[in-house]
Parts: sequence; structure tokens; C-alpha cells
Amino acid sequence: MAQKTIITGTGCYIPTEIVTNRDFTIHNFYAEDHARIETPPQEVVEKFIQITGIAERRYASCDLNASDLASIAAEAAIKDSGIDPETLDQIIVAHNFGNVLKHTIQTDAVPALASRVKHKLQIKNPHCVAYDILFGCPGWVQGLIQADAFFKAGIAKRALVIGSETLSRVIDRYDRDSMIFSDGAGACILESVPAENSESGILASSAVSHCQDEAYFIYLGQSNFPGSDPRIRYIKMHGRKVYEFAIKKVAEAMKECLDKANVSIDQLKMVFIHQANEKMDEGIIRVLYKLYGKRDIPTTIMPMSIHWLGNSSVATVPTLYDLVRKGKVEGHNLEKGDIILFASVGAGMNINAICYRV
Amino acid sequence: MAQKTIITGTGCYIPTEIVTNRDFTIHNFYAEDHARIETPPQEVVEKFIQITGIAERRYASCDLNASDLASIAAEAAIKDSGIDPETLDQIIVAHNFGNVLKHTIQTDAVPALASRVKHKLQIKNPHCVAYDILFGCPGWVQGLIQADAFFKAGIAKRALVIGSETLSRVIDRYDRDSMIFSDGAGACILESVPAENSESGILASSAVSHCQDEAYFIYLGQSNFPGSDPRIRYIKMHGRKVYEFAIKKVAEAMKECLDKANVSIDQLKMVFIHQANEKMDEGIIRVLYKLYGKRDIPTTIMPMSIHWLGNSSVATVPTLYDLVRKGKVEGHNLEKGDIILFASVGAGMNINAICYRV
Repeated sequence: MAQKTIITGTGCYIPTEIVTNRDFTIHNFYAEDHARIETPPQEVVEKFIQITGIAERRYASCDLNASDLASIAAEAAIKDSGIDPETLDQIIVAHNFGNVLKHTIQTDAVPALASRVKHKLQIKNPHCVAYDILFGCPGWVQGLIQADAFFKAGIAKRALVIGSETLSRVIDRYDRDSMIFSDGAGACILESVPAENSESGILASSAVSHCQDEAYFIYLGQSNFPGSDPRIRYIKMHGRKVYEFAIKKVAEAMKECLDKANVSIDQLKMVFIHQANEKMDEGIIRVLYKLYGKRDIPTTIMPMSIHWLGNSSVATVPTLYDLVRKGKVEGHNLEKGDIILFASVGAGMNINAICYRV
Repeated sequence: MAQKTIITGTGCYIPTEIVTNRDFTIHNFYAEDHARIETPPQEVVEKFIQITGIAERRYASCDLNASDLASIAAEAAIKDSGIDPETLDQIIVAHNFGNVLKHTIQTDAVPALASRVKHKLQIKNPHCVAYDILFGCPGWVQGLIQADAFFKAGIAKRALVIGSETLSRVIDRYDRDSMIFSDGAGACILESVPAENSESGILASSAVSHCQDEAYFIYLGQSNFPGSDPRIRYIKMHGRKVYEFAIKKVAEAMKECLDKANVSIDQLKMVFIHQANEKMDEGIIRVLYKLYGKRDIPTTIMPMSIHWLGNSSVATVPTLYDLVRKGKVEGHNLEKGDIILFASVGAGMNINAICYRV
């Protein structure tokens, strides 16, 4: 029997600690070669917002870990969908650093975050299988692709897919890139329903992994601070390379997904793209439209949350979707039948996209 | 069209550094309450081997990380299968701690280990999707279940599934349980073929997650050494609880899998069970046969490698299967048509099983 995979509920957790760019002007920044950056921090911050669009970001409070953020977002999604959590077949948590206790740098993913979420939600059913997936920032979108595969295989019918990360605990505060990263969690309930019962559903998906020259564009490395302990490592990226790679390759994967779904660019209502960098995201959209020979881009095509939420890795797409879906992003409204695209890019380097009819 | 999922190649990497029980007799052991264990280390070690069956274990050399072990095992599996690695649709790496550089305690899974393996194998094809799965010790078996789901969904046809871990780098040497853990990697090539072309294949699978009281039976915790830094944490377990849980629940999941496959216990040639603890594994098998009202257990039902390889988490099952498949375990020979069971249990607490016809 033909089935469709639909999103029946969404939720997110927006951490409470607001950190503004101004907060970074008291920092001394250093370059990768440990040389002090002579540009005054005020100017560094000015330039930063122009490129990334980030004015503020959110950090989780000390008492909350990634699995806690995940659980709060999950509870919201479960409530929104109205399902009984005991009927879930799978809990998939996407992340990159597991739980990082505040003021330590050690990742903790034993037990897996999905087990901790299931524990917190007090789900008893042992046949609700809980596991984590690591796929860089596109992990949450990949979690949807995973669940959809299990549905199509007839192994599962209902999944909770969460993206959660506390990047504020793995940043090198002496590195300008530390201003990009933030904390957050987003979740959705995904269900398999008979095709004849629903117009909505996943129309197609695509995923690619570029692991040649690109494998270590995003990596863990030593602090930029002179004389820092090389055994203690932080999230690092070759920003320029990531930017150039993404501009070139993400639009390709998006088009591949639209082609698979047999959807034309004109049918596309909105793109929920990983909030990595505003200029980069705008560049990707321009390239996407260019692939179709188009220069005019609908002004409401790309809702953005990066200005106030920063880049929370796996959490950006589900958080943004939850906000738009619930009418919390001005100028962006979703209606039944709208065709949208989820797309992400990140460490690996991995890229993926899902075309979905609301 | 009906398909079957078959294993067409296997490989493993057995680390070179041999650590005997005798090496541990120079240790001073401490209990969880930081009290010195007064029993002489020689006696501790004697008792240890009686319970666990572990006489030796293997540690990876300093220059190799979990992703390196994974790559070596992967190369062996690829060679064994004879496939062109560029035709792989997925690379799935199961682990729990990512790469842990020797003499640091920091986990590194950015990029994901699957990306690093793909990089090392120099696979260009971007449509070969590389990701990691965290599911405790049963991660490798779960990777097979994942790949099988993607095959059944028609999304992929060929996967490389690897389990790799360097537990020697996350053990607390003051804890007696540190003697259990070891390093290793195992891999297989899994392929989807038309059902009419093969008698072999996965017959059924089962997986459960027990996350109520059980979620933190295996966890990260402070060293047993008095005054140790609580922010630096090591793999820890409530051994007695794990033991009792496993004895009770693993056989159930195994029987569920056999029932799904419509296979009777008498048809079962061999069980490849996670090498966690010899007495525990023997207990599980006894309970399994008891579920069928049987007391007589075939002497060759359960090949073991724990005596010389210890517990290398996700690596035990694929390593053991590779060794038996290649005729390297005396008294255990596999033939075409044999029905076997893979089974595992670990942090989460997760349990899974796959029934497979060779």
C-alpha cells in the first residue's frame, strides 16, 4: 500500500541566555597562527554582522545540556501532534557534540542522547528504538530521511526526530568564528499514513557527502590563544572554503531534490535553509534560481532566524520551521498544499534536502 | 520486486598492542566510593578472569584513531567482497566515543567518523552518503538494520557498515572494570539483491531500547581515584545491574527475532553475540534455550573471542563474524545455508538481533 510521510507536530527550545555582538567587543581575538588581531574588536564585530547577519545568539543556561534542550523541544512537538508518545517507533537525535557539561570540554554521548530523551519523556515501550545520528549540521534533515526510509521499508510508522546542540560549550572564545555559534533544539513528529488519506508528505529527498578535500573544512582544533594546550580542542572551520563549497554545491543538491520530486522552482513557496551565514544563504538561493535561468527571487522565499538565534547547527532548520509553522515569523505564512524545501550543509562536508508538501 | 539483503564481504582490524591481565597486577584499584580495594591486585585479576573470561585485550597503537581502525577494517571488507568502493551508496560507522587522541580524554566526531573513513578510502562519489550512528555496543548490528531499511525502501543498494572503538582511551585505570575494555574495528559490505538470485540474506531483525531505570547503567563518570577531577570522566558501568538486565532481556529479543524469521531454535547453527563478559553470554544462551524448554545447548553454538580480544564495544560482533567466516576460530565452521544470529546489548540500554542465512 502506498504511504506518505507527513509532519504532524513540531516544537523547539530557544535558550534563555541572550548574548549580543556587543558582548564580544571586550574580547581579544587571535588568528589561526596565534597572532593577535590588531583590528579593534568593535570593528571586528561590525564586519562580522555585515557578513553573517548575526546580531545576537542564544546560549543554554548552565543547568541544561543538549539532551535537556532536546527533551523540551520533543515535548512541544509531541503536544503539538497530539500523539501518545508510547506509540513512537523511533526516537532519532541528531547532534555533533553530545552533552557538554558547562565549563568542561568533554563530549558525552554514552548513553546516546536519544536514550536520555526517551528516559526524560518516560516512554516505557521498549520497541520505541532510540538512537543518535552524526551527520554534521544536516543531521536533523538526515534524521527525517532516515525515518522516511524506515517507513517506506515498513519497519516503523511514527518517529520523533530531534536536532540539539550546545555549541557555546565547544567554541574558542579567542577565535572570531566563535561569534557564529549558538545553542538550540528543534523537533518534529513524523508519521507514515496511507497515501489516499493525505495530500501532504515528503515528495523527495537528496543527500551527498563530499569527503575528499572537503572532509576537514570543519574540524576540532587548538585554541587561537598563544601557548594554548593543543590537546584541548574546539570547533574550527576554514570559513572561506566552507563558503565557496556551499555556494557551489548546495544549490545542486536542492535542484536534484526538486527534480526528483518533479517540482518546478515556481511551485516552491519557501526554503528552510540551515542558518549558517546570511550572505552564504542568500548566495545559495541566487545560485539555485540561476540554475533555472532565473534572476528574480521571491522576497518571501527564505525565512531567516540567524539575526537573533545565530547558528545552532542541527537545530536551525527544525527551529525555524516550527516558528514559521506557528506564525511566529512575520511575513512568512504556510498554508495547506504549499511546497517547501528543507536544506542543510555542514561538517563532513554533507549536504541534504527534502521537498515537502505542507 | 522482492529483494534480499546479503553480506558479501567482511573485514576487521585487530590492534597490535597486547595487554595481559598480569599487566594490571601493578595497578592499585579503587572502588566507586574512592576507597582503596584491599584485595591484592593479583587476586582481583584472578577473580576477574573467572567472571569475564578475559585473559588479554588489545589496544591500538598511539598513531591510530578509531577512524583509522575503521578504515583498515573497511578496506579488508571491500577487498573481500570484490566491489568497487565507488559503487557504495552508504557508509555507516557505529561508535560511542569517536576519535580519542591518545593521552587526551576528548571525544572527536567532527567530522563524523564515516566522513573520515570515506576520505581515507578516497571515495569520490558524492552520492555515497557517510554518517555515524550511536546506539551503544549494539551500534554495528543496528547499522545493518539501518542499511537493510534503506534497501527495503529502495533508497540504497550497497552499504559499508563499520563498528570501531578505542575504549582503552576512555577507561579509568583505577577501576577494576577498566580490564574489560579494549580497542578494535570490524566491517562488512551489505548488498541488496533480487530475492530469486539468493538463498542467503537477512531473515528478520529486532531492536529494543530500555531507557527507564536502565538508561544510565552504562555512563560517563569520575575516576575512582581519590580527589580526581570530577569534570574528567571515564566509561563506567553498574556491572551487576547490566548483568541482571542482559540475562533477562537479551534472550527475549533474540527469540523475538527468531520468531519473526520463522526459525526454530534447532535450525540455529551459531550465535554471534556481543563479547561483553563470558559468564553473561553463557547465561544469555542458557536463558534463550530455556525459552524453548531446552536444557541441552549445542557446544559449538557460541564462538567466543573475548579471551584474547576483550570487549571492544561495537567491534566485537563484526570482528568475531569475520574471524569465523574466514575459518580462523577453531571448531566453528560456517557453510552456505547455515542460519545464524547476530545479537548485542549495551549502553542505552539497547538490545538487538539479526537472523541471517549464510
